[in-house]
Parts: sequence; structure tokens; C-alpha cells
Amino acid sequence: MAGYTIVLDAMGGDNAPRCNVEGAILALGQDKDLKLVLTGKQDQLNKLLDECRSQGQTWDENRLAIVHTEEVIENEEHSPAEAVRAKRNSSLSVGCQMVRSGEADGMVSAGNTGAVLSGGTLLIGRIKGVQRPALTLPLPTGNPPTVMVDVGANMDAKASYLVQFARMSTIYFRELYGVEKPRVALLNVGVEEGKGTELTKEVYDLLKADEAINFIGNIEAREVLMGASDIVVCDAFAGNVFLKTVEGTAKFIMNQLKAGIKDSFKAKIGALLMKKTLKGLKNSLDPSSVGGTPLLGVKGALIKAHGNSDAIAIMNAIRQCAMFISTGVNDKIAESIRG
Amino acid sequence: MAGYTIVLDAMGGDNAPRCNVEGAILALGQDKDLKLVLTGKQDQLNKLLDECRSQGQTWDENRLAIVHTEEVIENEEHSPAEAVRAKRNSSLSVGCQMVRSGEADGMVSAGNTGAVLSGGTLLIGRIKGVQRPALTLPLPTGNPPTVMVDVGANMDAKASYLVQFARMSTIYFRELYGVEKPRVALLNVGVEEGKGTELTKEVYDLLKADEAINFIGNIEAREVLMGASDIVVCDAFAGNVFLKTVEGTAKFIMNQLKAGIKDSFKAKIGALLMKKTLKGLKNSLDPSSVGGTPLLGVKGALIKAHGNSDAIAIMNAIRQCAMFISTGVNDKIAESIRG
Repeated sequence: MAGYTIVLDAMGGDNAPRCNVEGAILALGQDKDLKLVLTGKQDQLNKLLDECRSQGQTWDENRLAIVHTEEVIENEEHSPAEAVRAKRNSSLSVGCQMVRSGEADGMVSAGNTGAVLSGGTLLIGRIKGVQRPALTLPLPTGNPPTVMVDVGANMDAKASYLVQFARMSTIYFRELYGVEKPRVALLNVGVEEGKGTELTKEVYDLLKADEAINFIGNIEAREVLMGASDIVVCDAFAGNVFLKTVEGTAKFIMNQLKAGIKDSFKAKIGALLMKKTLKGLKNSLDPSSVGGTPLLGVKGALIKAHGNSDAIAIMNAIRQCAMFISTGVNDKIAESIRG
Repeated sequence: MAGYTIVLDAMGGDNAPRCNVEGAILALGQDKDLKLVLTGKQDQLNKLLDECRSQGQTWDENRLAIVHTEEVIENEEHSPAEAVRAKRNSSLSVGCQMVRSGEADGMVSAGNTGAVLSGGTLLIGRIKGVQRPALTLPLPTGNPPTVMVDVGANMDAKASYLVQFARMSTIYFRELYGVEKPRVALLNVGVEEGKGTELTKEVYDLLKADEAINFIGNIEAREVLMGASDIVVCDAFAGNVFLKTVEGTAKFIMNQLKAGIKDSFKAKIGALLMKKTLKGLKNSLDPSSVGGTPLLGVKGALIKAHGNSDAIAIMNAIRQCAMFISTGVNDKIAESIRG
């Protein structure tokens, strides 16, 4: 591929626009095929770029453009879907429109998750034949990670959606991590066939019969972080409960450790010495360290970066978007859904 | 109350029958109103009781009886519900029949969870008006704990089931922990009204309108272990994902700590010093330390003890069963469901 253009929603995320601009510059330095378009408030963005220049940073100016947008979609929008529709001149909405029109091949946004999902579905649009797009998330189980899908897009899922999620994530995983037949498991309450809800029973039968999917059966939530499969398929409600429980449990354990540390001087010394270990642990559970997460099934490469992304996380998300584009994931998804 | 009779499924659990017999003796020593019936293989149980006698242990022999049963329901039964029906002379099934007939007021079993649920529903039977019984679990958030319901009984729940779960667990929590209006939250993907699936939206509206329930709104999975509510209502699929994710995350963190400890000598010293803290932590996440968990909505007091219960855990489960009986939880549930 001669090159590709990625839009960065420069106003999206807790640390926008500063970290977005810094991440963009880092990404340009690492990838000569990359052209970046920043959507956002021109004055603010130019000011930040000037700051970077005055600190001696350089980049290929021909590969970085700004498209001015007036509006910003906030993290606290009451209805993200409505905000995407209403704020047509927002950094997110304009970016989506550029992907839809073909001016850009993909987009990265660290903004409001619901708005990114709505932007992908409503403004960019689905690949022909895809019933519902699905949000994926790489979990820190090792290298490659385990990819969970769906973690945000579809609350009341049908069995056929989940089968498409399995197909799409199989292609994504293969292209991104070079694993020919990634192992797909279905999140369920037990490993035996016949376990679970009407939905999971139906999905089980469909996955088992699908030759495009390397289905290894059900997986219980306790085994997910052990890396027992490459892909974990679930509906977004279960995915949300899983992810937020991981977060809550980690927090609970940290609180317990802190409480324990107060109680004992010896333990306090121990904790100080273990600082490095605990820090490594924290990073391995931090979504921003894994870059971003694609919304599979939309026409362009749409990567949702974590809300509190720093410059490195933004750079990683841009690289992930570039990989998604250059490996032709979407063409292969279109083919698989047709076939 | 002059006294009450509790059946202990002496053959149920990973450490049965030894720990069950030892737990029974401990419970008898603590509660003069308690009569215990052990169901199980007479020879084995008498031999264990003889061992205890020869070690100098004593108990009120008039308050301990054995009912001989031939069959045992295994942890690995393919269909627990079928096993309960087929093995009518099992320690579990005979116990359930004794509760149904009124020979006993309640039962404790550390056996196969599915079989205990089936025994409760099929052999003991539901309180009139209760659509589905629900399994509760106390989470180690503090004192009192947070009670989660349902964690095992109903895979494809209807909104009306979840409202009954909220009513039943409100009564249970009030009687057991003396909190007049326990705070009930609904497990959901966001705190705002209107979030989630068709099911959770419907349940939200019903809970909000129910004056018998102190409904405080939605709760996200990350807040559950922070003790943000007294009761968390969910369907059994979500409950299962929550509990097994807590378990898996704790295991993941322990593994990470161990891996980190290998890497660094300093951290190793730290870990040794922190041993006590980590052990306290492990106990706080261990379901057996909280005794047992009632199946709400069946006619007797049915307590499921954790599969790997030791003697102390069995004793705690028996005490919990006694508390359930002596506070008249079931009469109050019947009244609330009628009203």
C-alpha cells in the first residue's frame, strides 16, 4: 500500500488535545506511510504544535493536516447517539464523515465510547452483510493477548450477531497477530455443552457448526485471564460485567493491601520493596497500555482509544489503526460475511 | 422457638463425610436449641463419630441422629436435576424429603450446587406465589456483607423474577443483619436510568415502583465489591460471570505477583514480609469463610455450603440455617409475596 490517511479525533479523551497532538507526532515519526488529519479546534491545535516545535520537535509537515471543527462531544453527553447526530461539526462526527467519504481510511478517537460506537454505526456505516458492529478489547493475558468481543456495542444480542463477532474477530486476530486459526471460546457459566441461557445454547450450536471458526467450546469467566483462548465471544452486557469486575476486583485487592499495610510495619516495608512488582501489575491491567480497540464491522478502520490515553497510548492506537488498514482486515471480513 | 431440626447432608462436599461430622459436633456445642439429623452412610458416619469420641469429644447424643442413605450425588453428575430425581435414596434427596414433610425445618448441603438447587425446587418446593427460587451469596465487602442474588438458579430470568429476588433478599438481609431498609441495587452497565438490556430496563422500572424495596438504582460491576449497596440483584448468568471474574482476577493478580517475585530478590523479601497481608486477603475472597448461601423462596431453610467447606464452614452454614429458621424469614417472604 502506497500510504494511508488516518483521522485523529484531536478533541476526544481526558487528556485532549495535548496528548493527542503529542501522540500524533510520535506516530508520524515511526511510520513513513502514515498521513494524519487532526480534527479539532484549529487555534488550540496550532498552538500545541508550535509548542512542540519550540521544544525542538520535528515531523514531516506534509503528512500532518488539521481540519477545523467547532463542536466537541463531551464524556458526559446524556445520549451519545444523539450528540453524534446533533453535533455534525464535532471533531468526532467530521472524522467519521471523512472515513465514510473515503477521504480517510480510518479514525482513532479516545472520546466518549458510546459516541464512537454511534459514529461508527450511524455515520461511517456497516460493511454489507454485517448485522451489528462489535467492540473488541485485548486483555493482558500474554503475547498475543486474548481478544474479548463484544464489550460495548450490543446490549440485546441475537445468536447470529455473536457468530458474526466470532468470524470478524477471527480475521482480525489472524491479521494482527499472525495466528492462522485463533481459538474461539464462548463465555458461559460452565464448560459443558448445553450450559447457560437460551442465547448461549443457540450460539454454541452455531459456532460448533461454522467451519470458518476454530471453536473450542465454552469458557468460564474465571479462565479468561488465564489465556485459555485467543478470542472470547460474549454479548456486551456480559462483556461489560466481566471488564468492570476485573477493574473492581483489582481495586478491592489494592485497598485490602493498603489496609493491611497500615496494620503492620513489617508489611509496610515489604510493600515498599514490592513497589516495582505492583507497578508492573497495575500496567498489565491498564487498558491504555494496550493501545486501542477496534469496532469491527464498520466500513473504515475505527479504533477507540482508552479515555485517559496519554501520548504513548494515542500513538499505539494510531499504529493499530494503520495495521488494521494495511492488512486489509475489512476486505477479508466482507468476504467472510458474504461466504 | 422451642427448638428446630436441621438436616445435614453428610455426604455432600469435597471433604465429606469427615468435615461434615466434625462441623455438626461443633454446631451442637454452640446451640442448645439445635437438633441435627445426618443423612448418609450409617457405617461411615458411626465410625467417624466413634473416632471423635475416642479423641475425647462430647456432645448431646439426644440431639444428633443418623438417617441411613445408600446413594450419593456426585460433584460430576452430568445432569444434577436428573440425579436428584433418580437417586431418591441419596443423602441430599432424603434430606429434602424430610424438609418437605416437616420432619426437619431446614437443610445444609455442601454438595453439587445444581443438585441442591434442583432438590430445593423439585423436592422441597416453592413458597406459594414465588415464581423462582434464587441463590444468594454474601460478598466480603464489610460487616454486614453485600448480598448478591441470583448467583445460580435462573439462567433465563424474567423481570418479575428479579423483583421477587429483591423482595426476598430484602427480608433475608433485614432479619439476618438487622438493617431495616437494606439498599437494593440492580447490576447494570451504567448507573443512569435507561441503561442496559430490555430486561434490566424493565426491572429498573418495576423496582423503582415497588414500595417494599429500598431501590437505590443501577450499580456497575466495578462498584459491587466497594460495598456501594447491601443487595445486588442480577440474573444468574451475570451473577456467575461476576463471581468467576472475581475469582479469576484474584488468581491472575497472585500469579503476576509470583512472577514478579521471581524476578527480583528485593520483591521476594517484600513478599515474605507481606505474607500476613496476602493471607488475610485470600480469606476475604474465600466463599467458605462466609459459611453458606441460602436458596430463597423454597419452603424450608435450604443452605448451600461451599463445596470445599471444612468443619468450621459447615458449622457456620448450620448456624446460618438456624438463624434463617428462628427469625421466621420464610413466613415473612410468604407475606411479602402475597401482599
